[in-house]
Order: sequence, then C-alpha cells, then structure tokens
Amino acid sequence: MRIIIDGMGGDNAPSSIVKGAVDASVMMKQEICIVGDERRIREELRKYSYDPAKITVTHAEEVIESGEAPVKAVRAKKKSSMVEGIGMLKKGEGNLFVSAGNTGALMAGGLFILGRIQGIDRPALAVTYPILTGGVSLLVDSGATSECKPNNLLEFATMGSIYAEQVLEIKKPKVGLVNMGIEEGKGTTVLKAAYELLAKSRDEYGRLRFVGNIEAREIPAGVADVLVCDGFVGNVIIKLTEGLALNFFKMIKTELNSGMLSKLGALLLSNKLRGLSALMDYSEYGGAPVLGVRGAIVKMHGSADANAVKNTILKGTAYMEKDVVKNMENAVLELEEISAGE
Amino acid sequence: MRIIIDGMGGDNAPSSIVKGAVDASVMMKQEICIVGDERRIREELRKYSYDPAKITVTHAEEVIESGEAPVKAVRAKKKSSMVEGIGMLKKGEGNLFVSAGNTGALMAGGLFILGRIQGIDRPALAVTYPILTGGVSLLVDSGATSECKPNNLLEFATMGSIYAEQVLEIKKPKVGLVNMGIEEGKGTTVLKAAYELLAKSRDEYGRLRFVGNIEAREIPAGVADVLVCDGFVGNVIIKLTEGLALNFFKMIKTELNSGMLSKLGALLLSNKLRGLSALMDYSEYGGAPVLGVRGAIVKMHGSADANAVKNTILKGTAYMEKDVVKNMENAVLELEEISAGE
Repeated sequence: MRIIIDGMGGDNAPSSIVKGAVDASVMMKQEICIVGDERRIREELRKYSYDPAKITVTHAEEVIESGEAPVKAVRAKKKSSMVEGIGMLKKGEGNLFVSAGNTGALMAGGLFILGRIQGIDRPALAVTYPILTGGVSLLVDSGATSECKPNNLLEFATMGSIYAEQVLEIKKPKVGLVNMGIEEGKGTTVLKAAYELLAKSRDEYGRLRFVGNIEAREIPAGVADVLVCDGFVGNVIIKLTEGLALNFFKMIKTELNSGMLSKLGALLLSNKLRGLSALMDYSEYGGAPVLGVRGAIVKMHGSADANAVKNTILKGTAYMEKDVVKNMENAVLELEEISAGE
Repeated sequence: MRIIIDGMGGDNAPSSIVKGAVDASVMMKQEICIVGDERRIREELRKYSYDPAKITVTHAEEVIESGEAPVKAVRAKKKSSMVEGIGMLKKGEGNLFVSAGNTGALMAGGLFILGRIQGIDRPALAVTYPILTGGVSLLVDSGATSECKPNNLLEFATMGSIYAEQVLEIKKPKVGLVNMGIEEGKGTTVLKAAYELLAKSRDEYGRLRFVGNIEAREIPAGVADVLVCDGFVGNVIIKLTEGLALNFFKMIKTELNSGMLSKLGALLLSNKLRGLSALMDYSEYGGAPVLGVRGAIVKMHGSADANAVKNTILKGTAYMEKDVVKNMENAVLELEEISAGE
C-alpha cells in the first residue's frame, strides 16, 4: 500500500511535509510518495537520511494556493500537486491522499476526479471533536455541504459511523442529530424529516445506533460519538469552540501574568485546551476525512507542522488498510430505500 | 409607568419573584404589579416590608407550566398569570411584562395577544452574549424563528440595533452576520441574500452599521455588537457556549481538587466564566427581550433567583421608558422597501 502526500499544500510546505513524511516512514512499512516541485522536495529530502525505496517523489509543476477559488483552481491547474495526487489515487497508484492545502479545492478535486460513492448525494468533511475528559466525537459535516436535505444527513450519519468504528476504533458508535431540543419533532422541517430517516435506519435496517436529537450544550461532554449536522452548523460549532478556547487561553495568560495563577496551574489548563483551539489540526486522530468521494482523502490543517504531518500519516493508514471507502459503498446501498418517499 | 411581572413563572415562583420585585421596588419610583395566585403572592409579600402603592397584586388563577406545548397552553389557559399579564400590557395597564415562565408560551402569547409590529414578519428572542474581556453583544435570534428568510434577518438586525443602542446603551452598534467565512458571497442562499439586504440598508438608507459577515470564532472576542443569525444557529451558539463553559468549570474544579490549582486562581477563572454558563440568565442586562411583538416583553431564565429578578426589573425599565417598541415601529417602515424584489 502506498500513501500519496501533497508536498506543496499548507503554510509550511514543502519543508514540514517532507520532514513529517520522513519521520513517519521510519515507523511504518508502507511507501510514501511526495507530489510536488521535485527540485524543492529533493532539496528538503537531502537534509535527512531515508530509505529511497520507501520515500519517492513525483513531480508536479503547479501549486493551488490557499486563497484560490476552489473549482476554478482545480479546473485550471491540472498539473498542481493536489490534482496530480488525487489523479494518482484514481489510477490506483496509491491508496490514501493527504493534503494540508486549500480545503475547498481538495473537496472539489475529490468530487471531479474520483466521483461520488454510489448512493451518496453530497460529500462531508468529518472532523474529530475533542472531549475534555478524553477521547473524541466525529462531527459530520464540518463545512462541505452548507445546505442539506434530510437524506444528506442520513448519508453523513452512515459514513460517519463506519469511519468512527473502523478508523477511530470507537465500538458501536452512538449517532446524535444536533438539534434545538432533545424531544422528537424539534427543529426545522429538514431536521424533523432527518430524524425519521435516522430512526428508520436504526429500527428497520439495524444500521445506525441513533440516540436521537442532541443539544449543542452536551457536545463538549461527548454525548454522542458521531455528531450529525449540516455544514453550516458544523462550521459554527468548530469555529465557536476554537474561539472560546482561544479566549479562555488568553484569560489564563492574563491571570498568570498578574501573578494570580501559578505556572503549573496555567500549564495544566492550557494543555487541556490545546486540542480545542485548533480542531482541524487533529492530526493525532488521522486528520479530517473527505467522506463521500470514491477514495480515501484526508485533510490536514493548513498550519500543520512536521509532527502533525507524521501523526496524520501514521494514524490515517487505517482508512486505506481497512478499505473503509469500499465498506461505505456497501453500506449505502440501502440508503435510497430508506429515503424513498422523501 | 408600571411594570407587570409574572408571579408564577419559573422554578422559584412565586417566592423569588416576589422578593425580587420588593427589592427592586425600593430602588425605583415605578409601580410593580405581580400577576398570579393572589393568596400565595400575598403570603410571600407578608415576609417583607414594602410600599403597597408601589407593589400591587392582580389575581390569575391558572399557571402555564414549563413543559406545556406553548400554543396550546396559551389558547387553553386564558386565566393564567402569563396570558393575563400580557393582556394587561395590551390594555395599557402596564408598560413592560417580565416573565421567567415557558419561553415558547411567552413568544406565542406575545404574538397572539399583542400582534406583530407592522413590517415585522417574524419575532426574535434576543440574548446578551458576554464578552470575556467585558461588555456584551446582542445575539438575535436565539431560538424563536429557526427557519429564516433573508428579510427576517434584516428585521432582526434592525430591531437588535435599536435595542442595543437604547437599552444596552451601546453607541452606534456594529451589526455582523454570522456566516461560514468573512468574504462577501459566503454561506447559504438565504445568507447571501441577507447580506445584500443588510448592505442595502446601510448604503442606501443609512440605517445599519453593518460590518459584513463574521465567523463564530470571533464572537467571544466581541467582533460585533449585534450578532444576526437564524434561531437554530443562535440556539447552537448559546448552548455550545454554555456547555463549553460548564466543562471548563469542571476542568478547573478537578485541578483545584487535585491541588494543582490555587483556590484564588480557580475562583478568578470561574468568575469570568460565570456569565457564559447561563447565557439566558443575563439579568444584569435586563433579561432577553421578545423582539417583533407590539409591546415590551422580557424573558428571564427559568431558574432566576430574587437577585436576577431584581436586576432584570431595574435594568429592563429603559425598554419601556424610552418607548423602544415604538421606535422600532418607526424604523421598520422602510424594511419592505429594502426587501422589495426578494
């Protein structure tokens, strides 16, 4: 099996991508192929000792920048590291594609080049949401599909459950629908219909471990393993969490500087908050998968350092090794039947 | 001017309502009328010394409980303290109605009995969102209207600006639209259209101080004075904030108990978090106004204690004294013109 990594994506590319790949390579048997500006990548590689059979380079002359309009960029820059990398995945020249580049372009590239899993209408970017007492929940969608139909939410729940079980190793993951109240019948028209579909999948198909509606208040305590919502709400959840954690950090720092808080106390609290302040950077859990496309694509935070790159590669391998995308394809065959009549 | 208070609404009614009213009465010149079970209210009143010209009681034999279906309850319980109280507001027997009771029933009662402000399509429950470095933003809507059209968001922005300026005394309040990114053109179809309307109100009518899209990440730092969003997103923002604050509290307590944090440090941090952990209980800022109905109605948290009741009354008086609802009526005349063609 072979991992393809976008050598040019992210703020610290190619240096931290190359170092992360080299560091990961030592700890695993699989080959890693770095795609991008060959001259610059080899220049970085020369700084380290590595096994040339396990680290290879494929040249790509263009780069999609973080500020570019995603669809346009993917169409115009066919020779970019991202488009070339996803193309290699498509051709079977690799089994997992990892990138810290433009999120929208990564989604668009995945959709255009790999296509959707049959039965999946919309993609989702799934993010691990750290629980303060330990562990994570998987938030699906975090921003890929901002307007959802009920069947989209059912698809997110189904793919999220499989990913949570097989990659995050959460046994029998509980699925919760983010809503305004826990009672059945709460929320918007779309959410009421989504509730019905999720319950049907559980009751009639034995598929999901759907626990019902959940309120945002319960999310930080880990009320469900898979948190289902549209991409707009998911985006608000992630960004508000990051914003609150950041402001809480500042508060701790102010008290520390004013002598009101001990160094040890401040350090302990800050460490617990660290995961919350950059949710998309959850490299310890293998990055954020682009669910719904016909291939294993993982997004890293744009500011990923070498350590984050290494962790994402090491933890992300389960996504390809367990053939999770194929398992999703098999599972979603019944989705259209569940959604029939919607 | 006269304040009407629901003597039977909330977990601690009538005791904390009566005590709060008595405590507020000492500090103000206006009359307070407590509506509810006269025997029980007089029983509570006997515990205190008060001026009978400034504290009066109006009997209402029924009570709307917190768990009741709002619309049904308002229709069936015409003799409830809530319905009677709003009826008194309608008849001009008072200028402000305050309740800690069933939120949905308070909204429904306001709509049925008082009607909507002309030009306002949907009501909103506005909540003050505490900024960690001090002050508040006003979040409109926090849960009254979960599905919004673009013109609803324009209405929320207009009413929220007036309330922020006249009751919260925020000069020239900045209005931000909660979105997935700050660039124009971001978000759902509804949000894109709402952006246009808000910009038009600013550019062509000189009405709003619209600063554009804002991300949830910036909310805790106080990026805007009026945060505009639909009730679903507003509800998620409030509940997630409460949930995170609660978990931060627990974290601090754990470190304190393990001896890793000093008592003083824990206390300081906890105090700063207090406002965040019960957003709806922001009595210091005069409670949460039901915007869009033809009368001044303010919601208190169900668990409001005597101090919260006192504060809500004292700080809420500006809402009636400055005739804010009338000012809103005058301001929204141009809304239909702005929304024309939507």
